[in-house]
Amino acid sequence: MKDYFRFEKSRWFFEEDVPFDVSGVKIGIEVKKKLYSGKSEYQRIDFFDTYAFGKILVLDGILQTSEKDEFIYHEMLCQLPMFLHKDPKKILIIGGGDGGSLEEVLKHKAERVRMVEIDEKVIELSKKYLPSISKGAFKDKRAEIIIADGKEYIKKHKDFFDVIILDLSDPHGPAKQLISLDFYRDVKKSLKKDGIVSVQSGSLNDQPGLAKTIFRRINKLFSFADIHQAVIPAYQTGEYSFIIGCKAKLNRLQEKNIEKKYKKLKIGLKYFSPEIYFSSKVLPRYLAEKIGQQK
Amino acid sequence: MKDYFRFEKSRWFFEEDVPFDVSGVKIGIEVKKKLYSGKSEYQRIDFFDTYAFGKILVLDGILQTSEKDEFIYHEMLCQLPMFLHKDPKKILIIGGGDGGSLEEVLKHKAERVRMVEIDEKVIELSKKYLPSISKGAFKDKRAEIIIADGKEYIKKHKDFFDVIILDLSDPHGPAKQLISLDFYRDVKKSLKKDGIVSVQSGSLNDQPGLAKTIFRRINKLFSFADIHQAVIPAYQTGEYSFIIGCKAKLNRLQEKNIEKKYKKLKIGLKYFSPEIYFSSKVLPRYLAEKIGQQK
Repeated sequence: MKDYFRFEKSRWFFEEDVPFDVSGVKIGIEVKKKLYSGKSEYQRIDFFDTYAFGKILVLDGILQTSEKDEFIYHEMLCQLPMFLHKDPKKILIIGGGDGGSLEEVLKHKAERVRMVEIDEKVIELSKKYLPSISKGAFKDKRAEIIIADGKEYIKKHKDFFDVIILDLSDPHGPAKQLISLDFYRDVKKSLKKDGIVSVQSGSLNDQPGLAKTIFRRINKLFSFADIHQAVIPAYQTGEYSFIIGCKAKLNRLQEKNIEKKYKKLKIGLKYFSPEIYFSSKVLPRYLAEKIGQQK
Repeated sequence: MKDYFRFEKSRWFFEEDVPFDVSGVKIGIEVKKKLYSGKSEYQRIDFFDTYAFGKILVLDGILQTSEKDEFIYHEMLCQLPMFLHKDPKKILIIGGGDGGSLEEVLKHKAERVRMVEIDEKVIELSKKYLPSISKGAFKDKRAEIIIADGKEYIKKHKDFFDVIILDLSDPHGPAKQLISLDFYRDVKKSLKKDGIVSVQSGSLNDQPGLAKTIFRRINKLFSFADIHQAVIPAYQTGEYSFIIGCKAKLNRLQEKNIEKKYKKLKIGLKYFSPEIYFSSKVLPRYLAEKIGQQK
């Protein structure tokens, strides 16, 4: 298997080239220890222990999550829809093999959280090498883990979920078809009438085409769509984006209720807050233009 | 002279180690062409043409500015105080040899803008290799360029400037003493009673100690201090920070007037806006804690 360590003097991990719009920038992360390298049916899987970000998970050469800043990604992806929805009881996560989204959603009083992950090996290895990300969520009685293709699984449900979280890798490898209009149509059908979908939509700086495509599709199908940004240092790609789609029209009361709910729940978040909910929607003009959002 | 190109296959620029709080991360920028490498009395100076960020200026191995995203840094550093001040007429820039701050400030109807830079060579070389950053500002009749040590220069002025912009490198090399309490005291004295100072204060993620120190000092001396954050992709250090200090108490009317002024001036900014003024003040809890700002 090809070795990622190409930097002199020490062992450094550099991401593989991805179909980003920007090239000529490479982030190197110094590796303390290689924990695992192997292949599943779907992808190459690596776990490294690093100096800057703690343990990291790498799929097909792309960094997926790190111990140090996973909370930013998972809070933004999960808490946005969980706080915006009045009373989310039935939750579906597609992807998210590291268990971080599962753990995030279970901070709420959800009745049942299903996680549909295609690659069982990612779950098993994450439990072993990244237990601090799932923090025992896999053992929660409300959690149900299903090994299946999310694209097929979603078709079997109509008017069923309150919140759907799409915790997917960038659209190459197993996640390729999970940004299609057809898939989003199935997602919409499987949501209840006030249901909300949340999608990670990549770097606004380095892959604005991805956020633009996902936003256009969600905005076309759903009554309300919005883009939020956050900075996740291990990704090193400027502003990272999250898209929310609401099946019902958003009423401003929902947004106002976020603060009340946040104060009541007291779930100890480190990134997301009612203030961040609003400030993360403000994009500088040059980024808004990149993704076709110029007012 | 030591060569920065250590990456295999092609020519890559990697920043030198700096006294950051985080190590084990290296950003590589692929170089199209080396434009200049030399030394001044104060520092090593390099200009490269790069694929991802256009032409870049590197001082003592640390990236200072890039053609592609200099506007983010310069708009945040300069437009924050220029919009917050009611009527800024006399402006002082300390540092800023590339001319980007000068150009930014001259978008306003300032009467006179003095720029005090210690290293004449940075100015001369920036005019030659980075003309798109200063955009002819050096020729503006309102601009006055003084080659001097800002620390000494500031002592000669009392109650004189409306806005002072500290466009300095990180505090090693020539800029080392320009974050001291004594220097800030002199800055305060040289400002008029409603004067405002603006300081770049480094990466909140990678060097929180710097922002913490600068904020503590500005906050101690000035009637009002605030931290703003922005993402500058070429710096690749997560959220970058800017600190504002106002000699007079901030009244909320000043903040409300930003929108009116912005609409009136129409100076075509790409990053700063009245919305960004407010949203850039919202720090996620984990960053606020890093710099001792936890509410």
